[in-house]
Amino acid sequence: MEKETVRIENFSDAVFAIAITLLVLDLHAPSAATVKNGTELLSFLKGEWTTYLAFTLSFFSIFIMWVNHHKIFKQIYSRNTAIMFANGLILFLVTAVSYPTALLARFFDGDASNIAVAIYTGIFVLINLSYNLLWFIASHNKKLLRPEITNSAIIKIRNNYLYGLPTYLIAFGISFQFPTIALAISMLLLVFWAVSSGKIKMIHE
Amino acid sequence: MEKETVRIENFSDAVFAIAITLLVLDLHAPSAATVKNGTELLSFLKGEWTTYLAFTLSFFSIFIMWVNHHKIFKQIYSRNTAIMFANGLILFLVTAVSYPTALLARFFDGDASNIAVAIYTGIFVLINLSYNLLWFIASHNKKLLRPEITNSAIIKIRNNYLYGLPTYLIAFGISFQFPTIALAISMLLLVFWAVSSGKIKMIHE
Amino acid sequence: MEKETVRIENFSDAVFAIAITLLVLDLHAPSAATVKNGTELLSFLKGEWTTYLAFTLSFFSIFIMWVNHHKIFKQIYSRNTAIMFANGLILFLVTAVSYPTALLARFFDGDASNIAVAIYTGIFVLINLSYNLLWFIASHNKKLLRPEITNSAIIKIRNNYLYGLPTYLIAFGISFQFPTIALAISMLLLVFWAVSSGKIKMIHE
Amino acid sequence: MEKETVRIENFSDAVFAIAITLLVLDLHAPSAATVKNGTELLSFLKGEWTTYLAFTLSFFSIFIMWVNHHKIFKQIYSRNTAIMFANGLILFLVTAVSYPTALLARFFDGDASNIAVAIYTGIFVLINLSYNLLWFIASHNKKLLRPEITNSAIIKIRNNYLYGLPTYLIAFGISFQFPTIALAISMLLLVFWAVSSGKIKMIHE
Repeated sequence: MEKETVRIENFSDAVFAIAITLLVLDLHAPSAATVKNGTELLSFLKGEWTTYLAFTLSFFSIFIMWVNHHKIFKQIYSRNTAIMFANGLILFLVTAVSYPTALLARFFDGDASNIAVAIYTGIFVLINLSYNLLWFIASHNKKLLRPEITNSAIIKIRNNYLYGLPTYLIAFGISFQFPTIALAISMLLLVFWAVSSGKIKMIHE
Repeated sequence: MEKETVRIENFSDAVFAIAITLLVLDLHAPSAATVKNGTELLSFLKGEWTTYLAFTLSFFSIFIMWVNHHKIFKQIYSRNTAIMFANGLILFLVTAVSYPTALLARFFDGDASNIAVAIYTGIFVLINLSYNLLWFIASHNKKLLRPEITNSAIIKIRNNYLYGLPTYLIAFGISFQFPTIALAISMLLLVFWAVSSGKIKMIHE
Repeated sequence: MEKETVRIENFSDAVFAIAITLLVLDLHAPSAATVKNGTELLSFLKGEWTTYLAFTLSFFSIFIMWVNHHKIFKQIYSRNTAIMFANGLILFLVTAVSYPTALLARFFDGDASNIAVAIYTGIFVLINLSYNLLWFIASHNKKLLRPEITNSAIIKIRNNYLYGLPTYLIAFGISFQFPTIALAISMLLLVFWAVSSGKIKMIHE
Repeated sequence: MEKETVRIENFSDAVFAIAITLLVLDLHAPSAATVKNGTELLSFLKGEWTTYLAFTLSFFSIFIMWVNHHKIFKQIYSRNTAIMFANGLILFLVTAVSYPTALLARFFDGDASNIAVAIYTGIFVLINLSYNLLWFIASHNKKLLRPEITNSAIIKIRNNYLYGLPTYLIAFGISFQFPTIALAISMLLLVFWAVSSGKIKMIHE
């Protein structure tokens, strides 16, 4: 059976690569008029720590999403309209990540931090949902999947994304009261996904 | 017969992927000076709804154009100068979509909404024309097409793009008087293309 | 003999695709504060004609450069450090095109038009020189070329790029006195390249 | 043994291509309000020499990093989580290069030049470390490498990156006192890498 999804994967890879690289456009150098010497430059850069935090967090989040995207598509051999648009939804949300990133960069260190973190964690809830949707559609019709895939592998992959949902929801929920803790949970989730992505390899391949 | 158009397709896919991702650069975070707390941030974001609408509409429009672009090129095996430049025209217009998108984002909610919507629907008229032109050139000389293609498939593809034209023209025409209705028609067209793209699959492949 | 240059070509194609798409970032929508209604929006957009001219001209210039880049690399099978860096120089200049484009967009319609056009035509002189350099390096050592290539084909390709040089130099030279005529020559050259690219196909392939 | 890293390489190539092309976004055309005629435009452009220097330096730095990235991955056939994230770190730093480039462009010609150059040379220290880390991980477990690779080739590649470290550190160290000399060393290193990349070819392939 020929794999029909090569082109969707290539297009998606390109969108992931562009989205991850465009994040840097939110690192703004100060104007020469406001910064006169090395000390002022250093002090300006220190004040930008939320920007670096947001950039780093979003970069590795998109990187891990890309790894997961590829893992899912390794199991998908055919495509239909539903898969095309579930994937389109993922790409839409991944592209949009730079906007909550900019909000986090500007407002994490201030009175609007709860809303900024809620929007930031909120988009990861949506992305998690769209990954669950993609796998639901793909596994619903076994004709779309790699012929040799086992039922237990299908369930393991489903659980992998499904179990992420409550954690993202918790991070989202508490961000209104404790934005710093919510962001810390997001970072821990990132480390968890990074480490677990190595283990899941065995199931996927 | 070897397919000569692989490289044009790859280049086009890259341009589509970049154009669709660059749209996000028009989502601007407010400056920390104008927004002091979470309530003000939420209120600012609510005021940006035209930006989100324009971003979403253009993202999925370019996504569907990309799907259609690929479908046409599945039938084209050889290339000549005319095909190269008809395709160049499509890429030019797809790249340019972000500009009417920005105009729509800023002016849909105000006194310039008719002009903003007219320009926005206008570029889709032009893109529809350029797809028709590409298929006219390709189908005019059957040596350029996939050898096994039938005449009825050629006509079905032609009609698929030709029938879009009057609808885009109607949306363009009424946008001067009823911009909201014109935009609603564009959105319905988007849904129609998305759904029909699944049906057309049978013809194309 | 295996083609060693696939990866350079893919990387170059990506840079061309990004450079051509980034041009759109210089189309700026007016702020809602300065434009109140449809008439003012139309009048603003009319005043932006130099921006559209520069965008269109640069888009199709890069598009044709990409076509030519691919044609040259169809003949190159091996690579060495000199080819890598001659190609790097081409990519550098192609990437940089957006800067003279922005200067042309802002200053063609004013007292600085001669300098703006001189810089704009100047970068095409440099790009033409870098294409000549690439072909000089590649054809200097026939071991780098496609084994079946004939001497007459090598000379025809060389002449194709060499004959462009005086015309670009003339456009550059007269831009200081007659910027409009210089730009018109650049546009005619564009049409010439577009048309001739069809004829050269026979030589290259 | 099948090469498992094709997709990581393609994704990395895309990120390199985008990062190198986005550098041009820091070349800003002056506004038509501040520049009235050709003489003022030329004088403005002359004052921008630090921007051109930073753009050129960073463009060819990323270009050479890309060449080296590809050379390393020619030797890597399998992947594990550690390689994925060492590579992710390289991509993160390469993407970030545009920020120190913007700082260098704005502050090299002023009282903050030592800090600007220190940050600029500093990111190359980090990138060198991340390349060393990638090769350390890859060569630590010979099962990840191309089966035919010899021990002496492994050591030569290791030394190639390891010997760069002290030079980058020296450039970083003296940039606090002598920023111009530190930048000159960085440029010489660039030329050295460019020339040596030709020689290393024999080892790598």
